[in-house]
Amino acid sequence: MKLNRKPRGEVTRQAILEAAELVFAEVGYAAARLEDVAEAVGIRRPSIVYYFSSKQELYDAVEADIFADLHAFSQARLKQADACFPRLIALLDAWLDFHVGRPSAARIIQRLVADVTPRQGNPVQYSNSALKDIEAVVNEGVAAGQFVDISPIQLLNSVGAGALFYVCNAGQVGENRRYDPADPAELARFRALLHRLAAAAVRGDRR
Amino acid sequence: MKLNRKPRGEVTRQAILEAAELVFAEVGYAAARLEDVAEAVGIRRPSIVYYFSSKQELYDAVEADIFADLHAFSQARLKQADACFPRLIALLDAWLDFHVGRPSAARIIQRLVADVTPRQGNPVQYSNSALKDIEAVVNEGVAAGQFVDISPIQLLNSVGAGALFYVCNAGQVGENRRYDPADPAELARFRALLHRLAAAAVRGDRR
Repeated sequence: MKLNRKPRGEVTRQAILEAAELVFAEVGYAAARLEDVAEAVGIRRPSIVYYFSSKQELYDAVEADIFADLHAFSQARLKQADACFPRLIALLDAWLDFHVGRPSAARIIQRLVADVTPRQGNPVQYSNSALKDIEAVVNEGVAAGQFVDISPIQLLNSVGAGALFYVCNAGQVGENRRYDPADPAELARFRALLHRLAAAAVRGDRR
Repeated sequence: MKLNRKPRGEVTRQAILEAAELVFAEVGYAAARLEDVAEAVGIRRPSIVYYFSSKQELYDAVEADIFADLHAFSQARLKQADACFPRLIALLDAWLDFHVGRPSAARIIQRLVADVTPRQGNPVQYSNSALKDIEAVVNEGVAAGQFVDISPIQLLNSVGAGALFYVCNAGQVGENRRYDPADPAELARFRALLHRLAAAAVRGDRR
């Protein structure tokens, strides 16, 4: 802990984190180089090492930052909803808006799902807060008898995955199918679809 | 084209492809090394180069193989269904069963969505067949007035993404939430959920 760290150091550290998030999003953990991050910040490689001793440490800081922000963003939205289904919608909307606003985070999480490599010891070291958010919202709906008995992880893997795919796939579907995930009309359609799916997931097979 | 390629050569080529799929799935394109593939097959690196002149060429062959098999598997299932909604279900079931049976393919596609790197020139060079499959099924349902007017890509990014997340996330959600995607009860629950979501997606907001 550098207790007397100067504000200027904090500014540099933040600039490194932001540049690193873009680099990790663009090329993935394995191909990312500290040199590329340094160049993007306009400093030299040894200056990065002053703040983050290794690529792993830098990656960890990026992932921790993403999930901390996602959790805070989600909790702020959840405070505005009290009934069970509106809370589920608030959480799904929070995820969608967060990823649309920060596509680099979406791509890092998308990779994390495929990739045991940079998080081998404990894949949920940082993502656990997001998993707990959806578990809490789903489990309280089930406990209140408002939702069918659905697994939060199955909901995550279907409706919850939508925000990541919607953002990450925008440039990956070919020239004639490209879309802008931040386009208001495109986003409104996708949001309405997710809401419909969420309703079907938690209410759908009640007889 | 090696027109007189010996069957034994074909066997080796296939063994290289299978080993490479596992390596690319495990560590991604950037971190994958031809040496690791060679070791898994039990041959030396130069023997791989005889079949695939570079890592890019080997990766291309793996991706081409995955999407060719996925397309053939999907088409075989689609032949068994004729009405619009059963055809959508047949396609989603085909994707789910394909990925459950071949998780390495799921992880490679999951990465492809995040990753412009190994397919920079044309991200849909091989995946286009899968995109066309879902476009055909969705568009025919819309044209027949059986489905609401939904974008095939939005359906892909929500309900269609489920199979990939379900398979890839199995070991990424933490010790206490791990599941076996091939477990019959787990799979049956997820399949039923996808069917419910598909119905809501294409029929949901008809008034």
